[in-house]
Amino acid sequence: MSIRVGVVGVSGYSGLELMKLLLRHPVAECAVVAASESTGPKVVSDIHPQLRGSCDLVCQPPDPKVIAEMGVETVFLCTPNEVSHELAPRFLGYGTRVVDLSGAFRLRTEASYGPWYGFEHSAPELLRQSVYGLPECHAREIATARLVANPGCYATSVILALLPLIRAGMLEPGSDICCDAKSGVTGAGRKPRLDLMFGEVSDNFRPYSPIVHRHAPEICQEIGWELEDFTFVPHLLPISRGILTTLYVRFSRPLTIDEIHAEFQRCYRDYPLIRLLGGGRLPDIQAVAQTNCCDLAWRLTARGRRGVLFSALDNLVKGAAGQAVQNFNLMHGLARDLGVTLENHC
Amino acid sequence: MSIRVGVVGVSGYSGLELMKLLLRHPVAECAVVAASESTGPKVVSDIHPQLRGSCDLVCQPPDPKVIAEMGVETVFLCTPNEVSHELAPRFLGYGTRVVDLSGAFRLRTEASYGPWYGFEHSAPELLRQSVYGLPECHAREIATARLVANPGCYATSVILALLPLIRAGMLEPGSDICCDAKSGVTGAGRKPRLDLMFGEVSDNFRPYSPIVHRHAPEICQEIGWELEDFTFVPHLLPISRGILTTLYVRFSRPLTIDEIHAEFQRCYRDYPLIRLLGGGRLPDIQAVAQTNCCDLAWRLTARGRRGVLFSALDNLVKGAAGQAVQNFNLMHGLARDLGVTLENHC
Amino acid sequence: MSIRVGVVGVSGYSGLELMKLLLRHPVAECAVVAASESTGPKVVSDIHPQLRGSCDLVCQPPDPKVIAEMGVETVFLCTPNEVSHELAPRFLGYGTRVVDLSGAFRLRTEASYGPWYGFEHSAPELLRQSVYGLPECHAREIATARLVANPGCYATSVILALLPLIRAGMLEPGSDICCDAKSGVTGAGRKPRLDLMFGEVSDNFRPYSPIVHRHAPEICQEIGWELEDFTFVPHLLPISRGILTTLYVRFSRPLTIDEIHAEFQRCYRDYPLIRLLGGGRLPDIQAVAQTNCCDLAWRLTARGRRGVLFSALDNLVKGAAGQAVQNFNLMHGLARDLGVTLENHC
Amino acid sequence: MSIRVGVVGVSGYSGLELMKLLLRHPVAECAVVAASESTGPKVVSDIHPQLRGSCDLVCQPPDPKVIAEMGVETVFLCTPNEVSHELAPRFLGYGTRVVDLSGAFRLRTEASYGPWYGFEHSAPELLRQSVYGLPECHAREIATARLVANPGCYATSVILALLPLIRAGMLEPGSDICCDAKSGVTGAGRKPRLDLMFGEVSDNFRPYSPIVHRHAPEICQEIGWELEDFTFVPHLLPISRGILTTLYVRFSRPLTIDEIHAEFQRCYRDYPLIRLLGGGRLPDIQAVAQTNCCDLAWRLTARGRRGVLFSALDNLVKGAAGQAVQNFNLMHGLARDLGVTLENHC
Repeated sequence: MSIRVGVVGVSGYSGLELMKLLLRHPVAECAVVAASESTGPKVVSDIHPQLRGSCDLVCQPPDPKVIAEMGVETVFLCTPNEVSHELAPRFLGYGTRVVDLSGAFRLRTEASYGPWYGFEHSAPELLRQSVYGLPECHAREIATARLVANPGCYATSVILALLPLIRAGMLEPGSDICCDAKSGVTGAGRKPRLDLMFGEVSDNFRPYSPIVHRHAPEICQEIGWELEDFTFVPHLLPISRGILTTLYVRFSRPLTIDEIHAEFQRCYRDYPLIRLLGGGRLPDIQAVAQTNCCDLAWRLTARGRRGVLFSALDNLVKGAAGQAVQNFNLMHGLARDLGVTLENHC
Repeated sequence: MSIRVGVVGVSGYSGLELMKLLLRHPVAECAVVAASESTGPKVVSDIHPQLRGSCDLVCQPPDPKVIAEMGVETVFLCTPNEVSHELAPRFLGYGTRVVDLSGAFRLRTEASYGPWYGFEHSAPELLRQSVYGLPECHAREIATARLVANPGCYATSVILALLPLIRAGMLEPGSDICCDAKSGVTGAGRKPRLDLMFGEVSDNFRPYSPIVHRHAPEICQEIGWELEDFTFVPHLLPISRGILTTLYVRFSRPLTIDEIHAEFQRCYRDYPLIRLLGGGRLPDIQAVAQTNCCDLAWRLTARGRRGVLFSALDNLVKGAAGQAVQNFNLMHGLARDLGVTLENHC
Repeated sequence: MSIRVGVVGVSGYSGLELMKLLLRHPVAECAVVAASESTGPKVVSDIHPQLRGSCDLVCQPPDPKVIAEMGVETVFLCTPNEVSHELAPRFLGYGTRVVDLSGAFRLRTEASYGPWYGFEHSAPELLRQSVYGLPECHAREIATARLVANPGCYATSVILALLPLIRAGMLEPGSDICCDAKSGVTGAGRKPRLDLMFGEVSDNFRPYSPIVHRHAPEICQEIGWELEDFTFVPHLLPISRGILTTLYVRFSRPLTIDEIHAEFQRCYRDYPLIRLLGGGRLPDIQAVAQTNCCDLAWRLTARGRRGVLFSALDNLVKGAAGQAVQNFNLMHGLARDLGVTLENHC
Repeated sequence: MSIRVGVVGVSGYSGLELMKLLLRHPVAECAVVAASESTGPKVVSDIHPQLRGSCDLVCQPPDPKVIAEMGVETVFLCTPNEVSHELAPRFLGYGTRVVDLSGAFRLRTEASYGPWYGFEHSAPELLRQSVYGLPECHAREIATARLVANPGCYATSVILALLPLIRAGMLEPGSDICCDAKSGVTGAGRKPRLDLMFGEVSDNFRPYSPIVHRHAPEICQEIGWELEDFTFVPHLLPISRGILTTLYVRFSRPLTIDEIHAEFQRCYRDYPLIRLLGGGRLPDIQAVAQTNCCDLAWRLTARGRRGVLFSALDNLVKGAAGQAVQNFNLMHGLARDLGVTLENHC
């Protein structure tokens, strides 16, 4: 059995990562690739030389009709927000299911798109149909979704760390959550930009978009927290891939390390890729790079009223392409982690 | 005019940085260098090839008597905590003034040394005599000090950002300060360690010693804050030098960006190396690398009750050797920034 | 069907890489891991956190008798030269086949070990039995070997580029071959050393052991060239993994780009992991990182008498663990590239 | 005394480096800066935040007339080849002397510009007047030059290593010189380009423009060697700054290490910034970074007929801005190394 899929926006970093995952996926068969920029027909392996010998597909224009006629059942959009916003409805119109890796269908209210994304949303009904593709939270809805909005990379790292504690009532309602996030540069895409040049990023480290980064509303929507009480400061690391987030929270009552561990274990017992680091261990980016894992750890202050949570993942895998494969698996009734298991990745 | 100085612990990273600063300092003349490890007589430029041609001093054993007899007026100790703890009293005994770059004389209470530094302090009277060498705060005491405890690199970055606001009563008393700090690896010294090898640090990022790092008590002592209310989480950046600290604070009343700017300006108006970034600018490490500057910026959340402060400096310069030179200058009645001005460095 | 294998020296970089490959290998089953240093029983995933959740084996002492009794058919030695030299005969004595990733059994004459490796070889008969494990050259002998000497990482990159042209008589006999090789730091192992610390390697690049590096005799033995005519200069790159080698050669007659291409194609037509870059393409390290590929390219000078060859591979995969898996496959009658195909890796 | 200078093309990496050198130069006074791109008036420190507080000049359009009227005696052109080609004659027309950091006036024959630079040279008479600004070779001509063509960064590293041996007849006439050069990315400029993005350069290493790089003719012109016998292969290092070149040469007779040392010493005895590494030392990039030094070392093969030369420098200092300052000093009768001495830099 094989299921034909397509990848639009293959020329970026998440496009490459997705191609690598699909090439070894036992069921998905990548039948077509498309690049959103019309730079003429190009072989994928000339864009991504790592694929030499394993993929000689030629980039097509992203034509939903043609792609549907090729028998493609699900298409992955690795495209910029605006492009996804335009393409997704057209693919859906031809009956092709969509996993969108952009932010175009993550927020439930269209009014948020102006201030946070800079464009007016033209498909509010799709915002209500789309499912936020975090398999640990929405597996059932993903299974039947026509349109899955793959979560942002920062958002994934934050939600996986906070949601269990919030749902268990362990965080003081209305308290400040300070979220200090650090990401490698592939999170910013592959378009040439001065501030992403090697000479600017190497030997450097800097915050950007503090407080007003567009992943903040997506996070608050999912964890049910007021934006005003959620202070989000992303920083740019001089590495290619990986995110580590440090969260400063206030508990609703004094907690112990073990109580937190128990709650995480309860939530993630069926999720071997969410790894809980007990025994004084702390996460780092190397341990999750090239894997679909999210590593979690936590510390308390002396009196147990406040805590620090750590969350690490690979922004291109669990933060993008790997999670997209999990969503594809759920949408097609396959085992959630097919092709992205611990053995496959690390 | 020249003043003879000595450098003990020249083989480390702050030792090298200090040598470079002293070589171009118009008054200080480095007459002797010593290495705390007895690896036989070694020319400095064989330890630090960057100094080839500019310094052919041979490392001596760190003998306070011999060094005093050479006419050395002030000695810089770039040695581990325990070594400084042992050497400083002996140098002082021969009348040599000491700028100690370790933590051995930073805390005022000897009882703190067991839990935070792992050794019992044997010179409590020196803890009372020593001056915390932050020129922006203690210039007058530094001028007459026999023993200056050069501040820690993290501590410098944090205190310079917090102290003006705390002194002005702008932070809510007793509120939580969350301090997310990120440092390059030279801050951890030059002793071979598996976790500091290139293969472990590169493409990586990780927290370490969260909440219990030994710079926390030094910071709280200087800013007058309870340790329990100060959550300090340092992280290791995959770069050689530089610190960027992100501080999450709560104000005592709603503030504006301009009020904070005004307060910083009032405090640092005579300190051109403390650079205040207005107009939406944010600090980064490249901008302060190889300089004695500390760059500060700040942001408010929507209702102005909480804020984020950013502080960036070079851990080897303002966080170590450059600040040591400022202390030397003050101790000898020279212009505070002699040899470490903006023009000298950048 | 599964074949039980063991990994000795699992704590290093090639040990980790091998574990990752074995975990997803469809036939090999890693039954035992051992660390050459007796640091007490340790879970593999505490040494290599990337393996958390996928491997909870506990490091054993490397006892050949015990390991043989566990039904281990083949053992991989990821140990230093001296340790392999001591362990291999003992494993062979218990009937366990050995793939040795060190240099202890690569040279055919025991007299070479003193000058090049600094120890006297005590098993000259094994030097005659051992097979140099380059699957592209010695597949038949590997299939029946009891002891396979896995080639050095530099050696693999050089031999794969030179051997086809030398065998075809295309290089001028006795002419100089200049071999400028550049490697990432994992090639130097994982023992803490000052010159491999992040602060020393980052922002740096340097030659080491020019002309006298110990991979030179291994290369000359395999390509049949006089050492005096082979100038080998390795350099240390500020990256973790990957080798790129640039070779300057003189042809026996003027050649064209196409003649060289044709000869390479003839030799490597059955080896999809040896990728020939035509059409003006040049290799780079990113394209081969995390794969078992070796990418080759070539250029001529204007009159076609001299040429430049380029060879790129991942020192930990094709230069170590991946090639070891290929040797294991051949030794056990499996498809040569099982578990290390293009799809598995990239 | 001060001499007014101007810097055109201040927004690039060599422009920044030059500004830093001029700020601390005891005689030069930077009176005007210009950016070749008309992005509106911009303060230099907004382009280069490292200059905050030390330079608040506003970028001007590069108007030779206006700049001459400001009393600027010498202008530095840190501009692309085509821009320098257009601007230099106009500055000279107003009596302003020019140090051009581009390649526009380095080659003596205008016919070379089409094939190597891609534009037709319109000022052949200036090619004959311009002086190749290598202070170690052409100090006398530089002193009186109106137009100095500052050498290329690769060219500087190669010529300084080869010229003494060639002039002494120590290289076999007509023999092959293989030049394997490796450079940090700032050598490629600061214009956004996909292949210079952090994600493409980091963890990577690759050759580019092998054999046909445009620094080859400039080198051969200065060392008097046939292009056909000079094989030049540059590579891109994943670091910001620094060049290390490895040269493979054939001697005219068997030489000893000491003979080569003696010849280098004879040539460079008055040049403390050219550092000769005896005693088994090898150069590296860290040792020359941020300095105006060029470090040289050499090795022989066993029979002494062939050798390997190593040359390391900082492409932005000795390979660009530092050398430009040396040329400025010579042009104005100042000490050659004023402002770029060993003490100033390291």
